Amino acid sequence: MLNQPHHDGSPLYVSTLTPQPGERVTVWVRVPYAAESVLVRTVHDGEPRYAAAAVDTARTGRPVAGYGGADVWWSAEITAFNAVTPYRFLVDGRWLTAGGLVDHDVPDATDFKLVTHAPPPAWLAGAVVYQIFPDRYARSGAERDLPDWVLPREWDRDPVIPRGPGVAEQFYGGDLDGIAERLDHIQELGADVVYLTPFFPARSNHRYDASSFDRVDPLLGGDEALRRLSEAVHERGMKLLGDITTNHCGEAHEWFTTAVSDVNAAEREMFYFDPETGDYESWWGVKSLPKLNWNSPLVRERMTDVLVKWLSVLDGWRVDVANMTGRLGADDMAHEVARSLRRTLGDVAFIAEHNHDASVDLDLDGWQGTMNYAGFTRPVWSWLRGPQVGLDTFLGVPGDVPHRDGNQALATFRAFAARMSWRSLTHSWNLLDSHDSPRVRTVTGGFERHLLALGLQATLPGTPMVFAGSEFGLTGVNGEHSRTPMPWERERDEAMHEAYKTLLGLRRSEPALREGGLRWVHADADHLVFLRETEAESLLVSVRRAPGPELELPFSGRGVYGAQDMPELKIGCEGPALRIWRLAP
Amino acid sequence: MLNQPHHDGSPLYVSTLTPQPGERVTVWVRVPYAAESVLVRTVHDGEPRYAAAAVDTARTGRPVAGYGGADVWWSAEITAFNAVTPYRFLVDGRWLTAGGLVDHDVPDATDFKLVTHAPPPAWLAGAVVYQIFPDRYARSGAERDLPDWVLPREWDRDPVIPRGPGVAEQFYGGDLDGIAERLDHIQELGADVVYLTPFFPARSNHRYDASSFDRVDPLLGGDEALRRLSEAVHERGMKLLGDITTNHCGEAHEWFTTAVSDVNAAEREMFYFDPETGDYESWWGVKSLPKLNWNSPLVRERMTDVLVKWLSVLDGWRVDVANMTGRLGADDMAHEVARSLRRTLGDVAFIAEHNHDASVDLDLDGWQGTMNYAGFTRPVWSWLRGPQVGLDTFLGVPGDVPHRDGNQALATFRAFAARMSWRSLTHSWNLLDSHDSPRVRTVTGGFERHLLALGLQATLPGTPMVFAGSEFGLTGVNGEHSRTPMPWERERDEAMHEAYKTLLGLRRSEPALREGGLRWVHADADHLVFLRETEAESLLVSVRRAPGPELELPFSGRGVYGAQDMPELKIGCEGPALRIWRLAP
Repeated sequence: MLNQPHHDGSPLYVSTLTPQPGERVTVWVRVPYAAESVLVRTVHDGEPRYAAAAVDTARTGRPVAGYGGADVWWSAEITAFNAVTPYRFLVDGRWLTAGGLVDHDVPDATDFKLVTHAPPPAWLAGAVVYQIFPDRYARSGAERDLPDWVLPREWDRDPVIPRGPGVAEQFYGGDLDGIAERLDHIQELGADVVYLTPFFPARSNHRYDASSFDRVDPLLGGDEALRRLSEAVHERGMKLLGDITTNHCGEAHEWFTTAVSDVNAAEREMFYFDPETGDYESWWGVKSLPKLNWNSPLVRERMTDVLVKWLSVLDGWRVDVANMTGRLGADDMAHEVARSLRRTLGDVAFIAEHNHDASVDLDLDGWQGTMNYAGFTRPVWSWLRGPQVGLDTFLGVPGDVPHRDGNQALATFRAFAARMSWRSLTHSWNLLDSHDSPRVRTVTGGFERHLLALGLQATLPGTPMVFAGSEFGLTGVNGEHSRTPMPWERERDEAMHEAYKTLLGLRRSEPALREGGLRWVHADADHLVFLRETEAESLLVSVRRAPGPELELPFSGRGVYGAQDMPELKIGCEGPALRIWRLAP
Repeated sequence: MLNQPHHDGSPLYVSTLTPQPGERVTVWVRVPYAAESVLVRTVHDGEPRYAAAAVDTARTGRPVAGYGGADVWWSAEITAFNAVTPYRFLVDGRWLTAGGLVDHDVPDATDFKLVTHAPPPAWLAGAVVYQIFPDRYARSGAERDLPDWVLPREWDRDPVIPRGPGVAEQFYGGDLDGIAERLDHIQELGADVVYLTPFFPARSNHRYDASSFDRVDPLLGGDEALRRLSEAVHERGMKLLGDITTNHCGEAHEWFTTAVSDVNAAEREMFYFDPETGDYESWWGVKSLPKLNWNSPLVRERMTDVLVKWLSVLDGWRVDVANMTGRLGADDMAHEVARSLRRTLGDVAFIAEHNHDASVDLDLDGWQGTMNYAGFTRPVWSWLRGPQVGLDTFLGVPGDVPHRDGNQALATFRAFAARMSWRSLTHSWNLLDSHDSPRVRTVTGGFERHLLALGLQATLPGTPMVFAGSEFGLTGVNGEHSRTPMPWERERDEAMHEAYKTLLGLRRSEPALREGGLRWVHADADHLVFLRETEAESLLVSVRRAPGPELELPFSGRGVYGAQDMPELKIGCEGPALRIWRLAP
C-alpha cells in the first residue's frame, strides 16, 4: 500500500484543521512515484472546482522522520468555502478520496473535508477517556438509607445478575466520593477524562431513567459529592464528563408525572401523547422511558438549561441515544437540535452515542464525535474474537460476533472513517467495550488478543475510551453483566493492568499516536500494519493475530513496544504479537 | 454475478413504491442458493431493527419469466417508519445493500430506501424526454425585428461559433411555433415529454440570463406561441417542461435593475450585495448572472409565484444549477428551498440539474430526480469513447474523456445508483449529451459506439433524455458547439434516426425497460450484460464495445434486437454489438 498516493486530513497534510470561513488552506498529497498531473478538486456550493497542485520542493526529497525521501510532495491552496468543503485529488486520472484510490468516478461522500465549524475544546484532542458506571466503581463507605426498589448486593461476593428480574435493581453502592478516592488509579492508567454514566436520581442502578435532571442522586452522595469529585478531578488537570438522555427521561421524572396526570399541564407538549388514547411514545417501547418531543419549546428551554447548569462542575457531555434524539417518524430535528445545543454550550465536549452508523450525524456543528462502535469496536471484535464467544448478538446485530479477517476489518475501518472529517474521526471514541456491551476480554477470549485490541485502541486515530475494569481483564457477556464491581480487593489481571499503563502511556507520550496521520502499510488475514506520522516522527504499528509470513519493509526502526531495533525492518513470523517501532531517518 | 442474492427496490421486490407513513411493506430478496438465514434490517429514527425473512413458497420454484425456478425467494414485512427508511439484508452473515454484497460492515449510505414523500406525477414514470434549445430547433417563418445584441446566422449555412465572441449572440431564429410544427418528429421518435431550455426574454440565445420570468421572449413568439405549443403538445397526450434558473437571473432582470439602482429598494434583499462595496454575488463570478438570495422572503414569494404561474401551460420544471440554489458559503438552504417549492407546486415534474454528484440532494421531497451526468453520462462516455476525442474537459473535469473499461463503468453506475432510492434513480435523466456538453457522436467517434450508448440509454433504469439532434448523429465539441440548428433540410444520419425510433420504441413497448428491476449478469473490459425484469417478463441486454469471448448463459432467449432466438443462450463474439433478448420460460 506504500506505493499509493496518500493524504488523510491530518496536520501533516493540511495547513490548518480549524480554518475560518473563506480561509485559504494548503493541502499536500504525497505521491511515491513521478506523477504527471495532480489536481485538487473542491466542491463549492455543490459545484466542483479544480486547482493544479505543484511539487513542493521544500518537502520533496527531505527524509522526514524515517519514511525516506523518495515521495514527491504536491501541494495546492484551496478555500474553506462552505461550512464543510469536500476535496479530493486527481492523480494521473485516478481519484484519491478518504475512501482510497480508485480508477473510476465515485460520489463525494468519501471526500476529505475542510470544516469551519467551531472546533472541539483543545483539551479533548489527545484525550484518553475513562468510563465509570458509578454504582460499580468504588464505595466511600458512607452509610445511606436504601429506597424500596433496591436489591442490595455485596461488592466482592454477589455476582452480577446478567438478565431477568433484579437486573436494574441490583445495587452495589458505589458512589462519587468512592470515585474521588481512586483518581490515582485512573491517572496512572493514562486517562485524563473521567466520564460518568448518569448520576441523576432514578429508580434503577443505571440511572438512565432520571426522575430529575436537577440534582445528583443522594445514593451517590448528592450534589456536594459531585462538586467534590469535580474539584478533585480538576486539581489533577483532568476533566469530567456527564451523561445525559436528551431522547427521554424516566417515567418518575417531574416533567412526565405532571404531564401524565394533567392533560392541560404545560408539560404535556414535552412528550408524544396520543390525543385519543393518552398513550405516549417511549424509547423502544419501554414505557418507563417516555420520549421527549423536541418540537416543544419547553423541552428545548428546559433541556438546554439542564445541560448548561451542570457545566459548573462538568466539562461536557456524552449524549445517550443521540441517534434518536429529535427523531420520530416524520419528525427529524436531530441535526438542528444537536447544533443548537452545541452552540449554546460553547467550548465543551459534546459526544454522541450511536451504537450504529453515525456518519450522517457528524460534521454538522452538533456532536463533535461519536462512540465509534460501528467504525472501531465491530471491526476490532470481529477480527480479534476468540474461537468460542457464544454471544447471541453482535452489538445489536442478531447472531454471534462474526469471524472476519484483516482485510475485512480494514475495509470497515476505512468505510466509516472515510465518511467523517479527520476532526470527527479523531474526536470519536475508540472503545473496546462499554457498560452497554460484552467485555472485550470475553470477546477476545483471553489476554493475548485482548492485548492486540488494546494495541489498536492505543494507536489508531480516535479517542481511546476505556470502560473501567477492562484494564483488569474483567469479563461480561452483555452490558448488564459487564457492570462488575471493580476488583479492588479481588484477584485481577495485573499483567493486563500493566499493559494498559504502558500502551496508554505511549499514546500520551507520542504525539504521532495522538495527532499523526494514518497510512496503512499492509493487511492480510492475520496481520495489520500501519504508520502514524507527524512531521517529527513516524511510528510503525504491527498487529498480528496469528503467526504468518515474515514481512520486510523499507524502513529502519527502533523498537518501542514488543520489538527490537532493526536497521532493516523485518516483522517476524510470531503471533499473536503487538509490535511498535519508531522509524529512524 | 447471477450467483449472488439480489434485490433492487423495483416493483418486483417491493410491495409498494409509494408507501404511506407507517405503512407495512413487503420486501423480497432472491437467493440463488440454500441460505440458512436471511434477516432484513431497517433503521428507525437512526436505530437498527431486525426482522427475520421467511421463504416465500408462492414465488420460490415458480419459473418466472424465463429466469428459471432455482432461486429461493425470501420475504419480510418492514415499516416505512421515517420519511426515508433505510433497509438492507443480512444473508448468511453477508450484507446486501444497493451497493452490492459485502462480507464486512459498511455505513448505511448505500442501503435500499423506502420513501414516503409524495411521488412524482404518474406520467413521468416511463417517460422519454426530448430536450429542445429553442433558437436551434425549427423556425415558423414568422418575421420579427431583431434586437441590437443579436448576431444573425443562416440556419443551414453558418456553422455554430463554439467559443469566443458571438457565442451567446449568434442567433438562428428558431421559435415555439416552429417546434409545434415538428411534434410529429418528436412523437415518432418515441418521446412524450418536450423539455424546452428557457423561453424567457434575455440578452442571449440561451436565455439563462432572463430579463423577466413573467413573459415569453417575443423572439420565440411570445406568450401566445407558448400557449399554442402547450395545446398542441397536450393534444397528443404529451407533456411540456420549462427550464428555470432558481439560482440567478439576468442582470437586465427587473428585480436586479431595481435592486442595483436603489440601495433602499425592496428588491435589494433579493441579491447578495456587499454592503461596503456594492458588489454582488453571481454565478461563477459571471456578473451578468446575479445570484438570488433565498434568505429573502421576496425571493421566495416571487420565485414561487413564477414557478406556479407557468403551470397553466407547463407540466413541470427542469431546474437550472439546482445544486447551487440556496447555497453560498455558510448559507445552505438548498434542501429546504427545493422541498418548499416542490410542495407548493404539487403533482408536477421537478427535476434538478446537477452536472455533478446529486446524491446528497435527492430523496428529500424536493427534486424528484437529477440530470444524471455523474451516474450515467460519465461512465457511458468513458467506456464508449472513441479512439481520438481530444476534448479539454470531461464534463467539467480537466482533461479529455478518460478511457475506462466495463468494470469501471459498472462500478460508477453502481456507486451513484446505490445512493439514491429506486424512485430517484428511475426519475433521474439518463442523458448522452445536452446543450451543455459535447455531442455523444463526437465522444463516441462514430455510429457504432453511438448506437451502444443509445442502447444503454434506452435500457438502463432512468428516464432517457434525448438532446434534439443527436438522433441525427450531430456532432459538437462543447455545449455551445452542440447547439447546431436541426438538419431538417441538410444531410443527416438516417440510420441513427431509425435506431432511435427502434430503441426508444422498444423502451415504450416493453414494461421491463421502464419499470423492471436491474440485475447485472456480466462485466468485463469490453462487455456489459444485464437483465431488466418484471414479474411478467425479463429482457437480457448485451452491450459489447469490441469483439470478445463467447458468453454462455443459463437462459433461453427470443431475439428482440440484433439477436436471434436461442434455446441455449450464447452471446456471440462479434462487436461492437447491441443485442437484446426476451427470456423464454
